[in-house]
Amino acid sequence: MKTIWVLNGPNLNLLGSREPELYGATTLAEIERALVEEGRRRGVAVECFQSNGEGELVTRVQEARGRADGLIVNFGAYSHTSIALADALSAVALPAVEVHVTNVHRREPFRRRLVTAAACVGAITGLGARGYHLALDALCERMAAPEVAR
Amino acid sequence: MKTIWVLNGPNLNLLGSREPELYGATTLAEIERALVEEGRRRGVAVECFQSNGEGELVTRVQEARGRADGLIVNFGAYSHTSIALADALSAVALPAVEVHVTNVHRREPFRRRLVTAAACVGAITGLGARGYHLALDALCERMAAPEVAR
Amino acid sequence: MKTIWVLNGPNLNLLGSREPELYGATTLAEIERALVEEGRRRGVAVECFQSNGEGELVTRVQEARGRADGLIVNFGAYSHTSIALADALSAVALPAVEVHVTNVHRREPFRRRLVTAAACVGAITGLGARGYHLALDALCERMAAPEVAR
Amino acid sequence: MKTIWVLNGPNLNLLGSREPELYGATTLAEIERALVEEGRRRGVAVECFQSNGEGELVTRVQEARGRADGLIVNFGAYSHTSIALADALSAVALPAVEVHVTNVHRREPFRRRLVTAAACVGAITGLGARGYHLALDALCERMAAPEVAR
Amino acid sequence: MKTIWVLNGPNLNLLGSREPELYGATTLAEIERALVEEGRRRGVAVECFQSNGEGELVTRVQEARGRADGLIVNFGAYSHTSIALADALSAVALPAVEVHVTNVHRREPFRRRLVTAAACVGAITGLGARGYHLALDALCERMAAPEVAR
Amino acid sequence: MKTIWVLNGPNLNLLGSREPELYGATTLAEIERALVEEGRRRGVAVECFQSNGEGELVTRVQEARGRADGLIVNFGAYSHTSIALADALSAVALPAVEVHVTNVHRREPFRRRLVTAAACVGAITGLGARGYHLALDALCERMAAPEVAR
Amino acid sequence: MKTIWVLNGPNLNLLGSREPELYGATTLAEIERALVEEGRRRGVAVECFQSNGEGELVTRVQEARGRADGLIVNFGAYSHTSIALADALSAVALPAVEVHVTNVHRREPFRRRLVTAAACVGAITGLGARGYHLALDALCERMAAPEVAR
Amino acid sequence: MKTIWVLNGPNLNLLGSREPELYGATTLAEIERALVEEGRRRGVAVECFQSNGEGELVTRVQEARGRADGLIVNFGAYSHTSIALADALSAVALPAVEVHVTNVHRREPFRRRLVTAAACVGAITGLGARGYHLALDALCERMAAPEVAR
Amino acid sequence: MKTIWVLNGPNLNLLGSREPELYGATTLAEIERALVEEGRRRGVAVECFQSNGEGELVTRVQEARGRADGLIVNFGAYSHTSIALADALSAVALPAVEVHVTNVHRREPFRRRLVTAAACVGAITGLGARGYHLALDALCERMAAPEVAR
Amino acid sequence: MKTIWVLNGPNLNLLGSREPELYGATTLAEIERALVEEGRRRGVAVECFQSNGEGELVTRVQEARGRADGLIVNFGAYSHTSIALADALSAVALPAVEVHVTNVHRREPFRRRLVTAAACVGAITGLGARGYHLALDALCERMAAPEVAR
Amino acid sequence: MKTIWVLNGPNLNLLGSREPELYGATTLAEIERALVEEGRRRGVAVECFQSNGEGELVTRVQEARGRADGLIVNFGAYSHTSIALADALSAVALPAVEVHVTNVHRREPFRRRLVTAAACVGAITGLGARGYHLALDALCERMAAPEVAR
Amino acid sequence: MKTIWVLNGPNLNLLGSREPELYGATTLAEIERALVEEGRRRGVAVECFQSNGEGELVTRVQEARGRADGLIVNFGAYSHTSIALADALSAVALPAVEVHVTNVHRREPFRRRLVTAAACVGAITGLGARGYHLALDALCERMAAPEVAR
Repeated sequence: MKTIWVLNGPNLNLLGSREPELYGATTLAEIERALVEEGRRRGVAVECFQSNGEGELVTRVQEARGRADGLIVNFGAYSHTSIALADALSAVALPAVEVHVTNVHRREPFRRRLVTAAACVGAITGLGARGYHLALDALCERMAAPEVAR
Repeated sequence: MKTIWVLNGPNLNLLGSREPELYGATTLAEIERALVEEGRRRGVAVECFQSNGEGELVTRVQEARGRADGLIVNFGAYSHTSIALADALSAVALPAVEVHVTNVHRREPFRRRLVTAAACVGAITGLGARGYHLALDALCERMAAPEVAR
Repeated sequence: MKTIWVLNGPNLNLLGSREPELYGATTLAEIERALVEEGRRRGVAVECFQSNGEGELVTRVQEARGRADGLIVNFGAYSHTSIALADALSAVALPAVEVHVTNVHRREPFRRRLVTAAACVGAITGLGARGYHLALDALCERMAAPEVAR
Repeated sequence: MKTIWVLNGPNLNLLGSREPELYGATTLAEIERALVEEGRRRGVAVECFQSNGEGELVTRVQEARGRADGLIVNFGAYSHTSIALADALSAVALPAVEVHVTNVHRREPFRRRLVTAAACVGAITGLGARGYHLALDALCERMAAPEVAR
Repeated sequence: MKTIWVLNGPNLNLLGSREPELYGATTLAEIERALVEEGRRRGVAVECFQSNGEGELVTRVQEARGRADGLIVNFGAYSHTSIALADALSAVALPAVEVHVTNVHRREPFRRRLVTAAACVGAITGLGARGYHLALDALCERMAAPEVAR
Repeated sequence: MKTIWVLNGPNLNLLGSREPELYGATTLAEIERALVEEGRRRGVAVECFQSNGEGELVTRVQEARGRADGLIVNFGAYSHTSIALADALSAVALPAVEVHVTNVHRREPFRRRLVTAAACVGAITGLGARGYHLALDALCERMAAPEVAR
Repeated sequence: MKTIWVLNGPNLNLLGSREPELYGATTLAEIERALVEEGRRRGVAVECFQSNGEGELVTRVQEARGRADGLIVNFGAYSHTSIALADALSAVALPAVEVHVTNVHRREPFRRRLVTAAACVGAITGLGARGYHLALDALCERMAAPEVAR
Repeated sequence: MKTIWVLNGPNLNLLGSREPELYGATTLAEIERALVEEGRRRGVAVECFQSNGEGELVTRVQEARGRADGLIVNFGAYSHTSIALADALSAVALPAVEVHVTNVHRREPFRRRLVTAAACVGAITGLGARGYHLALDALCERMAAPEVAR
Repeated sequence: MKTIWVLNGPNLNLLGSREPELYGATTLAEIERALVEEGRRRGVAVECFQSNGEGELVTRVQEARGRADGLIVNFGAYSHTSIALADALSAVALPAVEVHVTNVHRREPFRRRLVTAAACVGAITGLGARGYHLALDALCERMAAPEVAR
Repeated sequence: MKTIWVLNGPNLNLLGSREPELYGATTLAEIERALVEEGRRRGVAVECFQSNGEGELVTRVQEARGRADGLIVNFGAYSHTSIALADALSAVALPAVEVHVTNVHRREPFRRRLVTAAACVGAITGLGARGYHLALDALCERMAAPEVAR
Repeated sequence: MKTIWVLNGPNLNLLGSREPELYGATTLAEIERALVEEGRRRGVAVECFQSNGEGELVTRVQEARGRADGLIVNFGAYSHTSIALADALSAVALPAVEVHVTNVHRREPFRRRLVTAAACVGAITGLGARGYHLALDALCERMAAPEVAR
Repeated sequence: MKTIWVLNGPNLNLLGSREPELYGATTLAEIERALVEEGRRRGVAVECFQSNGEGELVTRVQEARGRADGLIVNFGAYSHTSIALADALSAVALPAVEVHVTNVHRREPFRRRLVTAAACVGAITGLGARGYHLALDALCERMAAPEVAR
């Protein structure tokens, strides 16, 4: 059975209570539970982790090697600046899909740059909590039949 | 029954033959057929359109008002520069999801700026032809229960 | 009798219905009718044209040579980027006045750059539909007594 | 009876003699006289003021509150840099129209930025002394029937 | 009784010994003791925390919700770059005052940008250890009578 | 007895009436009266001055030499651009504290640059009218025991 | 027999009459006729096409695949901005030589950037109508003996 | 007899006492006296003026027309930013030489830009009070035999 | 006996397995062992530490004061952005040499900026694992005879 | 008989051996021989010169005045930065054509700027050694019948 | 007797014949002769040197140490870019005055940056050949009584 | 026996006397002697060369092909700008190590860019004269066992 890790970064533990008109009312616990559930239906193990620390997220990405087959990552604010996380993703060379709950392309300019997405397969932005499910779907599809497209 | 329009921009008519190692081997006709099929399963009408002309795409977006309930758009190279298409999307005020077949975040700097995505609900990038299906899923979900998250 | 062409660009066909709190409630048809009427009073022929396509607008500007004596242009989103339209205006060397319905100087940074206005006599911005009439007045005055000022 | 103030900034007292091939041969006194005259015809009081000092212009804008119903402003070189004048205009919250005798959009890059116009209703540029009359017309129209468009 | 948290970031644990000609000779322990004392006099509980880690500071800001009524923050070097800390401050929506011991406006250009101050009520810079006391004063005043000014 | 001068720049004479939701409802006269009063309590003479003119403010800063022992300055819009005022402050070499009523760090980019604060001891921003009192406190403390920290 | 397509973009239909002191007095028709003639001498079929529309030019480049063996392109103003045309050239993977009649390297800064030339074999600028003939020569040589140099 | 005006800007009235290690120990009065004296020897009338106000300097430049034959200007901090002063110099079209006491080319970056010098014949920087005398020499030479070189 | 600390930052624990064609096949453990060995030969104690966390590295740099006589640092991705680490190095004022295994000067632009090296004695880049030994040599030499050169 | 000088700059003496997959396998000697030969056929004297020194190339350009009727220049790396060479070309005012063997428009950004081409008639890039022949052709044509186009 | 070296850079050997409407009609030989003459009158030896090569100019600056007491330098185009020449001037630590015949402040942007002047005492620009004499005067004055001002 | 060339650029002939507090007191001759000596011990021939001229350095790099097995280069000021030297290094394809005596990363911004180091194996900066020895060590090691790491 394949395993997918879901890594969330700084402030995403506040989902549901933090500026809900912007980030939605679903909590991170609810999202994680639904993803595990969905994984079960599709026959993949989903494991979730959140941290506010850049270093801990780097470590977790590194640990994925040999223990996970794909990553769903939402590094929050670090997505826009962290070379260390991008390096970690490149180093482990696992397929990763970046998710952003809000439409970063219409927010402040510094949020329109996705540094870590450049080390992922692709990104899904602005589709709320649904984005995580679409990422899961994409990874599962990819595992079943890895596409030619980069 | 809800209707979703799928609008593709310049050079996407070449999908399948254009640099397949980058864009994949699926043709636009195949993608469109699969989307129509998928729509049928979900009970939504999917209608597709492609043009290399910015003005024709602007006109098509305008015409969506009153005739479509949501848009899946891949404006290709115009996504990175077209204020006119972004204005048209804002004017018609329909939910739109932008799709890019490749991971624009790791390509040339001018492809990392998504001008038209700022006028969409969100964007899906780098997931190949699968991206269109995820966009369809997101729009259908949204029609069923419009999320709070912007 | 002198002839003045009024050229409107992308999305201006939506005037009246598109974001009326920003662009006003008057439709393009109403504006055009009023300009023709006003022209009649002043003894000049006013002819109107709208297109969403940059290339069609370029062609129309070219065709003005020999058929019109002045131009009122609102190229919408293309005003901020189109070298081709600016080149066309320079090539035909007819007096043109650029109109913008909204005050572009207080909107997004990319709307504060008026590329095509540099190839016009001048510009009128932020005065709503009235701006077209002021442009017509300026062109008529200029035809009667071409000012020294550039 | 409504009152409109016409405020001119640095070097505009030289109009008519300063680089006439660029700024025209009409003097500021002639322009002011014609505006007062035109105001009389339209039933509005027009009062004029010129200063080379940024601080004096700020003070004059402030004094307009309660004493004028609209402003026609040509702050000359200060238009491109003065945050203080833009702040004063925002503070008094009177409708103002900015006028530039020359087409600033085709001059040096630093003249293409209209800092104070962002705090006005709109701007008229490149139409010579006629620009002041069009601004007067626009303010009178607006007083008669304030448009919806911003 | 109201509670105020004082959060210090990287290298501020070195206050007193680190470049004293720049940062002063008072240690962080002395500053914290004086603030607790001062709080006691004013009838507010002051609690202090220092960390060199961005993630730990993010977590501490989050924990302030429901446990503190105001924040005094000096995020040191992270003040100039951390979107994650600014996001955390926005999420908890507590009044915060940013303090910098040195006059950042006359130091290296990268220190003149206060990213996290944008998510605070205001900032006090260059006034040495006294800055913390002024911040405490401002928060106490504000709790007594929240000002209209943002 | 020590003397402190309070210098306010362009548009600050409008405090209380200008955009009160942004700048607060207290007038400049009220602020000045309170500062004089507070000075009396602390045994320092407080003298106040306001001008909209950059040159007059430069002159006033120069005149402070030999007549004042410290300065509280709020140069309004000139704070962001005036090299002349920064030069004057450097020339008189008196301790000065810059005050901004609003949180300039979260406003337009051009307000985030504090050119004149670089020639001051420090700055206090975003704390409303209270900021002036904190500045007074800081200057009094400093006169009593000039800190080592720059 | 080999076939070469000559594609001209916006405003190049005005060659000969548009600013002749800059662009020369030869018309596009004359240039095209001479190229066809020259092609005949060299034993290659030369076919010409002009359009003011970016989309039409994209389409024409696409159609070259399978129908032409090389391209001579002068996309006029679009050369400096069009990612869509550069993408089309990359997609068809035919050898193309870009021509500019004027010396773009000494004109306005925005004309010194050759976006579409990056997708060509090379470029010839500033040599007037002769540039088209040199491009034809280069393509013919290349067909005869494709050089190693990129 | 020819007349030369010497105009000094903000803070130059402090020469001699302001940062003497940077600006030298000679006062402005001494410089002015020496220039008048030197003028007498050469048979030209030298008249001096200083102001801290940009507007007053603009006015003084304007008044030079018809009353002076050349200008020596040191606009201090305004030299680096004032479009209004540069416009005034262009308008009066008198030969002017800009002087800076210090070597602005090795000071802060914002002092390396000489906006007003662009409207002068030339500039002399870094040569202390001597610079004014060299400027006087240059203007006298020029009046005697206006050079060809611009 | 002198002590030298070797601090490695994010992802350097992956040396040997991470992109070996870029970073070499030697593991961090091997490098550390060799450095300790080399230190023993030279009579200095070498102690090694690695962390993915910026805050932990800041703390470790601080702890070096009084416990180490010199530092060899490779902060990986943090080298290009971390003001906090540069501040910590300045605060402890120990001689440090920065090492990068790869030639950062020919990689992505963001890797060419060495923020933390500015707070070191110098840097060694591109010489693989050998770089650490050269840094050790340089520190030992320096301890033996501190050079005049900064 | 007309004379044309062919000037090659730094590293072009390595043509043929330097990165042949990029620059081609033809040596500079072969190119020069072919150009002299071709010149002979056309009745013009072709003389060749190469130097790695910027100053020597400046001198050689200067010496062309009176001794050559046209220049073919490939200043290699100096083309992108040398104001001195551009000045020399402007000073001698001879028609020059710049050649680059590779397509500089698709190489590193610093190679896309052609500083010296701005002082030439035009440029030919990316067409390998053939580019020199096309330049010779263009100069010969121009000598025969100097075109109107600049 | 003191010795002053006059160093001229690229293209200045063309003075008198190169674009005389810009650079004047005086030749470099005439200027040099007049400077030697003037030196004789003042009792200083003047020696002149010109080269088009940056390296030769660097060498000549170095040789000035011990052989000259001051430098008059006009490095032409190298003035705007040469760090090597600025380094050489700093290394020899002789008083140097930079001269530019034209007013570089009103020419192309790249000529407004004076890199080498930052390593000189000061600069004289735009005053034609007279500038060299003023520089000589300034150096002689300085030798007689070195000013305090930097 | 292997041969290593040591190439020094502009102003490095002044080492020992030029700003010794910055560059150290060792002369270039002493450094070169020590390197030759050290080479002898290691069994490699070390040959040294210095020039102030960019072109001569380019030539010397070219000549290294076939005559040297590795290069130690310190191009001084040219390191920050010379594309020609970087091109030469790429062309000869010999392993080169760049040395800077001072820590360029903490000096002026223009010295932090190492253009030529991008064409080397790596760089050693800030370690004084010792840097050359470390470079020699690295090249010898590399010749013995060329590392995998780039």
